[in-house]
Amino acid sequence: MQYISMEHLRFLLFEVYDIQDLFQYEHFSHLDAEQVSLMIESAKALADRDMFPFFREMDEKPIHYLGNGEVWSHPQLKTIIRNAAEQNWIGDTALFDQGGMQLPEMVHSTAQSIFIAANNSAQGYLGLTVGSSRLITSFGSQELIDTYIPKMFAGEWQGTMALTEPQAGSSLTDITTSAKPDPNGYYAIKGQKIFISAGQHQACNNFVHLTLGRIEGAPPGVKGISLFVIPKFRPEPDGSLTYNDVFCAADYQKLGQRAYATTHLVFGEQDNCQGWLVGEPHKGLSYMFQMMNEARVGVGLTAAATASGAYYASLQYSKERPQGRRLSSKDPLRPQVPIIQHADIQRMLLTQKAIVEGSLALATECNRLSDLIHVTTEEEKKKHWLLLEMLTPIMKTYASEQGNRSTSHAIQIYGGYGYTMDFPAQQYYRDLRIMSLYEGTTGIQSLDLLGRKVTMENGQALQLLSDEIMATSTAADEYLVLKPAADQLRLELQRIGEVLQHLGGFARSGDLERYTSDATVFMEMAGHVVIAWQWLKMAVVAQKSLEAGDFTRQSKNFYAGKIHTMQFFFRYELPHAAACAKTLMAEGCLTNLEDYLE
Amino acid sequence: MQYISMEHLRFLLFEVYDIQDLFQYEHFSHLDAEQVSLMIESAKALADRDMFPFFREMDEKPIHYLGNGEVWSHPQLKTIIRNAAEQNWIGDTALFDQGGMQLPEMVHSTAQSIFIAANNSAQGYLGLTVGSSRLITSFGSQELIDTYIPKMFAGEWQGTMALTEPQAGSSLTDITTSAKPDPNGYYAIKGQKIFISAGQHQACNNFVHLTLGRIEGAPPGVKGISLFVIPKFRPEPDGSLTYNDVFCAADYQKLGQRAYATTHLVFGEQDNCQGWLVGEPHKGLSYMFQMMNEARVGVGLTAAATASGAYYASLQYSKERPQGRRLSSKDPLRPQVPIIQHADIQRMLLTQKAIVEGSLALATECNRLSDLIHVTTEEEKKKHWLLLEMLTPIMKTYASEQGNRSTSHAIQIYGGYGYTMDFPAQQYYRDLRIMSLYEGTTGIQSLDLLGRKVTMENGQALQLLSDEIMATSTAADEYLVLKPAADQLRLELQRIGEVLQHLGGFARSGDLERYTSDATVFMEMAGHVVIAWQWLKMAVVAQKSLEAGDFTRQSKNFYAGKIHTMQFFFRYELPHAAACAKTLMAEGCLTNLEDYLE
Repeated sequence: MQYISMEHLRFLLFEVYDIQDLFQYEHFSHLDAEQVSLMIESAKALADRDMFPFFREMDEKPIHYLGNGEVWSHPQLKTIIRNAAEQNWIGDTALFDQGGMQLPEMVHSTAQSIFIAANNSAQGYLGLTVGSSRLITSFGSQELIDTYIPKMFAGEWQGTMALTEPQAGSSLTDITTSAKPDPNGYYAIKGQKIFISAGQHQACNNFVHLTLGRIEGAPPGVKGISLFVIPKFRPEPDGSLTYNDVFCAADYQKLGQRAYATTHLVFGEQDNCQGWLVGEPHKGLSYMFQMMNEARVGVGLTAAATASGAYYASLQYSKERPQGRRLSSKDPLRPQVPIIQHADIQRMLLTQKAIVEGSLALATECNRLSDLIHVTTEEEKKKHWLLLEMLTPIMKTYASEQGNRSTSHAIQIYGGYGYTMDFPAQQYYRDLRIMSLYEGTTGIQSLDLLGRKVTMENGQALQLLSDEIMATSTAADEYLVLKPAADQLRLELQRIGEVLQHLGGFARSGDLERYTSDATVFMEMAGHVVIAWQWLKMAVVAQKSLEAGDFTRQSKNFYAGKIHTMQFFFRYELPHAAACAKTLMAEGCLTNLEDYLE
Repeated sequence: MQYISMEHLRFLLFEVYDIQDLFQYEHFSHLDAEQVSLMIESAKALADRDMFPFFREMDEKPIHYLGNGEVWSHPQLKTIIRNAAEQNWIGDTALFDQGGMQLPEMVHSTAQSIFIAANNSAQGYLGLTVGSSRLITSFGSQELIDTYIPKMFAGEWQGTMALTEPQAGSSLTDITTSAKPDPNGYYAIKGQKIFISAGQHQACNNFVHLTLGRIEGAPPGVKGISLFVIPKFRPEPDGSLTYNDVFCAADYQKLGQRAYATTHLVFGEQDNCQGWLVGEPHKGLSYMFQMMNEARVGVGLTAAATASGAYYASLQYSKERPQGRRLSSKDPLRPQVPIIQHADIQRMLLTQKAIVEGSLALATECNRLSDLIHVTTEEEKKKHWLLLEMLTPIMKTYASEQGNRSTSHAIQIYGGYGYTMDFPAQQYYRDLRIMSLYEGTTGIQSLDLLGRKVTMENGQALQLLSDEIMATSTAADEYLVLKPAADQLRLELQRIGEVLQHLGGFARSGDLERYTSDATVFMEMAGHVVIAWQWLKMAVVAQKSLEAGDFTRQSKNFYAGKIHTMQFFFRYELPHAAACAKTLMAEGCLTNLEDYLE
């Protein structure tokens, strides 16, 4: 059973985003294309063997709280984590001298996308240890690195991110977990965290919680938040482990991702919880946001790759299931045709393909920028960083929101069977639904995009994105078949400018609430335009090979499929950007209506 | 906990669709407004007492197969069915001399919408007995009526619709269940049916399956399908029951509606299954389609009312949950505000309100037409019937498809909690997802709309709808505040005309596949325009009361809320109709792409 297209992943890595361009930089100079190919193939083999065969079963036997702080997890989880760690997919991007392989994020994320498509819950455990280990290697002391990183890279200790508190939710300014400095160099921690993914399970023997809290006397709000490493068991100098008063009080049973633990943690109930400061005091939120930005792209990737699993499941079903006949041949005595021949089924498949492959492309774009930030000069770095800042909320939101639609189409293709637990479509639909909530909801991402990213550095980030879109359109102008799409994309870009001109009036007059009141609609518009750009970018590469007759890397049908899907996206999806613009440009205002909601 | 707005239901019944207008006809002349009000209040009391308190629990303890043909159901189900039957909500629309109360469909459906919002799975059982009993009273012999109807109206026997077969799915032309005539007046039945809702459970002691099959020697295709009554236990002349070889072989566990049995039935495995023909041979499909059309409006109503439950749950949560602050007052030392004050939460609430109330309005419109068909002159009847035929697929599809979005918004408002099983949002989301599959998928409805309804009787049905929309717009022109919406609606109607002009070219040239290839996109467009019409209709009534200062029936806020929600719909939702038009009017064609889907 196929769950992701290796051809598409190779197309992105080697053709559209040309990973070999990175190998010129010293940091990545040890790599070549063949090595990367082999690594990706190894990841696929691992996913085929250890992950995908357990995708359904791990949902049907969900993770659950056992009492006394313990959480049952499927036995296969340990195999998955250890074998992925053995292939070094946790520490792969770290420096050689930290135990890593100095792989580009592009390679790491390509492997992750395979794992996600195979078994999204299982990959979550890996992703969290990756993210939290990076916080330690980036901002932690050498002692923290030496103490925690080897165990985390080995998959023995689970890393987590502990942000959310019951009374604060998305409002991090209101977190209250307290940290009291102790002369012995640690902080005494007290507080509660909810929704902690991978916060307790049976596949790892220790848990390393990267936790936001307040040092006693810290200023209120986000400027008083610090970051701590808080292990469940603290390593003693002799190598033994002492229980660190981190208690898992409960788990949450969820609509989907039922093999992914979501826990409620209590720190310091017995006044014996020690945490170690990461970096400087009161800078915790800015550190966490390095991880958070990566995590947001990661959530978008999770949505895209989960939708990929649903797409291929429904595609295969559509080729195998005979039902009905073509309108041109309704004779009931003739055999039924496979449903893929029906126009509406093709529309639903193309919608999925456009969303899945477009989102995977944008993820690769983001990850390439992330790689370039690590290796380029200060000036170039700044540009890459600005563009990545701009794209991150869009990546996360487009893939999550449209991923819901995409997996819903998969159910629809299966017909009534899609709604039964006997087929996988419903699981993808359930699993994906959380992506627009993780790591900042769609509402939060939209405020970030319109309220921060569009205006940052005098609109430079927006200008860079606009330049990129124009450059792609110009490249597409070279090909007769792509010219109409290039024209359409320029038009949509111009429309975004008009919308921002209109909304900017409110911002300039100081009415920030009005400026951002339709931020989510702006996000929807921006998402459509950015994915259209990605599709045009792919189409340029595909058309070049088609016109050159160069089918050494992919088949003719593969490239032609990219052109058709691009045209499909521009025809069926992109027009909704103009509808969003109409909403955004409308006169008057529809806010402060709470009294009329009854 | 609120799950539906009684104010909105009364507004629809007594103000927008003026049910009292029906009482002039003899069939309904026994009724008055006060009586109707009392009936609706009784239905609400029943739902409050017997249904809503069990909504979550019946999901958590789902119906399931016990083996040996038996299916476990929650004990409360029996109480629900019997108490609803005692209030006569199964037989309510039937003639007095059949044990009914000659209630209008408008009243019946209003009560149903309350039951659905309270507990959609439970209402399914009632709805199926209603639908199947109507087939018997409309087309069955007096003997069939006398034998089955009293037990069905009493809620003792469960009625079902048995259409789908494993090899045929949506393609009814391919069904093979066979019926061999017996000299004793019955037919020997043999065949299998899948996805039979309410096909077996513990709350009723007999099951009356209204089943499609073929009499031996019948012509192939849909012209050879007949309708049979096939009981699980056949009543003998002495009143005893004999097992009729109808075996429940399995159930389907589903994503949602987990308290609603979905079964696999085997007829005649022991060659002892007897069925009784309903009406004439080979006319089964046309009979079934009377029921099916009602069932389609019913599925739309189920979607709308289920989304209502989700809306009110998330509305209440948004008023109670403090989180974050207004952008204009970010001081972290000030208390957090209830999330309903955030613009994006209001947008999600208004989207739900617009979809829920708009869909409930369209259901009432359909049911009023259904009532008028029963009592008006032949000429009027024809018009009402044509308009209802036009609106039925739209009602079913708009409410189902947009209902999915609506319940997804409810999850989003709850934030991470919405994804947990501790809160009801996820259940509404799961329950609703099947509505676009029941009784003809969205693809089937869209082919019906564009392929049959738009063209029927030389476009008369479409013309009638167009006249209605123009009439509402003209009425809205009278009010300054509604004029812009009236103008916008006329524009959208004109756009539909242009789209049909464009597509009609394909139909006229005989290319029916091309004509219908984007039928689902046309459906989306038509749905938006028809719901906009419903909103304008409601707004005219509301504005009239606002201008007259007449708040005897509803509060000023209630009416003002209708105006705001109408404006919200026209501003945020309706623009997407133009996006659909752009897709539909695009040059070229994107079909027969199966080779590129890989």
